[in-house]
Parts: sequence; structure tokens; C-alpha cells
Amino acid sequence: MIIMGVDPGTALTGYGLVKKDNNRHIVLGYGAIRTSAEQSTAARLETIYTELKKLIAEFQPHCLAVEELFFNKNVASALAVGQARGVAILAGAHAGLPVAEYTPLQVKMAVTGYGRASKGQVAYMIKTLLGLSEAPKPDDVTDALAICLCHGHNVNNWGRVK
Amino acid sequence: MIIMGVDPGTALTGYGLVKKDNNRHIVLGYGAIRTSAEQSTAARLETIYTELKKLIAEFQPHCLAVEELFFNKNVASALAVGQARGVAILAGAHAGLPVAEYTPLQVKMAVTGYGRASKGQVAYMIKTLLGLSEAPKPDDVTDALAICLCHGHNVNNWGRVK
Repeated sequence: MIIMGVDPGTALTGYGLVKKDNNRHIVLGYGAIRTSAEQSTAARLETIYTELKKLIAEFQPHCLAVEELFFNKNVASALAVGQARGVAILAGAHAGLPVAEYTPLQVKMAVTGYGRASKGQVAYMIKTLLGLSEAPKPDDVTDALAICLCHGHNVNNWGRVK
Repeated sequence: MIIMGVDPGTALTGYGLVKKDNNRHIVLGYGAIRTSAEQSTAARLETIYTELKKLIAEFQPHCLAVEELFFNKNVASALAVGQARGVAILAGAHAGLPVAEYTPLQVKMAVTGYGRASKGQVAYMIKTLLGLSEAPKPDDVTDALAICLCHGHNVNNWGRVK
């Protein structure tokens, strides 16, 4: 199965596409969708939606996985992240994909075995587990790949997770 | 011109449709889109998007107006509101509508002349200004109509507002 992981944000949305083949995870692609602060909110959200729809059409993932709320940010950034996240989830739903949500703790646990792992630990494990020469930059892209792996580990008992 | 005002939320999204005819405002419709906590996030966001698109097709508004971030809520609710708001803005953008954003202060100022007016004051003025027998319930629906009036008052100098 092909898993699409998304770490949404208004300025930068990280994405990763990982194929789960038995217990192996193979990277198909990753990158970032960037929008400019000079664009209107509507134009920025439309870009995120449209680019994600294009990636879905290109890679034909079987599901979309996103990170759940994080509580360490302030209210203004939570609202901005929420807007981007809503649009990302809608792009998946409109393409008929089931959407899975994982907490940061679940994602870190799946990738490093430790729910409070540092960014550096997550980056190191993503590089190692996926056989990359280095962890993708910025962190949002690495996080999107981590979300893919988290879903890959949980997909067999997804019925219980969601 | 016909203005669509939206007060987005995951469980309940208030909407209003107001026709601005010179300096008169005529209500064309209002109501709430409700989703159930038993639905998945994706299904709830899809409902909000689809229902707004239907309303846009039915009433053919010329623009969409939404309230900007409010800072008096907590991070979890800001993220949830953000998701619904992102989807609402996208519904407008996908229908080719310009999207206007107003702060709660601008909305209250436009409707009551006082930026810190109470919910009750706003409800009273909406009822009076729009000639309704009573203010629509819940507050989110009244707020959506207030956002319409705010845009109606600001639309002549919209270029400066946005």
C-alpha cells in the first residue's frame, strides 16, 4: 500500500509518499508545498489543496495520514495550522482516501520507540529507516515521512486506532 | 450585490445571505450546517464544504465574508475552528468568490457602533437592522448575518480593507 503523510501549515506543508511492502517501507517521494505571505489566505489554501490533489493523482496513495493537534503552539498559529490541515484532509477525502490522524506522541513512538524523542532523533531515524543519505529539510518534510511510517506501523490495527 | 457571511465551526457553521441594495440590506436566507461528533473529521469537513458549495450554487453570492481569528479561545478549539474556516474559505475560492476577512471588532463596530459590544447587543441590532421578528439562534447564525452587514458597510472601500 502507498501512504501519503502530510504535515500541514499555511506557509509550508510537508508531504511524504511511502510504499509499505510487507514490513519494508520504500520512499516514493517527498517535498514541501510553499505559499507566499503576499498571497491572500484563500489563494494560499487553494494552492495547498490543488498541489495535494495533484500529488494524489500522481502517486495514487491508498490513504492519507496527518498529525493531530499539537498543544505547544499559540492560538493564532493553531488557527492557521487548522486552516491548512482542514484543506489537506478535504483534499484526501475528495479523492476518496481514508484519513488517519496520529498524535505527535504516536508518531515519535512509531519512529524512535520514545514518545518524547527530539527532532534530531526523529530526523536520524527517518534517514536510517528509509535509507536516505540525509534527513529531508525542513523538519516538516521529515515529519511528513515520519507520519507515513507511523501509519505503516498502525495500519494493521487501524480499526482500533481510529 | 449578494453577500454570504460564514461563522465556521466543526460542529456548527452559521451562514447568512444578505442582499445589499444601495444602502438597504435584505436577508435572503440564514441557517446552520451541523455535523455530528460521531463522524470522522474528514466527513465533517466534507459536509461543511459540500453544504456551502450548495448554498453558493443556490444563492449565487458575489463574495464570501468570514470572521478573522479570535484570540479568546484555547489552542484546541482554535485548531478545530481553523480547519472548518479553511474549508469554508476554500469553498468560496473554488466558486470564484472573493473572500473578505474581518476581525470580531470590525464586525461589532459595523453592527453596533461599538467594538466591544455584547452578544446581546449584536443580536438586538441584527434583529432590528434586518427587520427580523427575532435574532436567529444559535449565536453563530446571528454572527454570520453580522459578518454580512460588516462586509456590506466595508465593501465600497474593500481595496483598502484587504
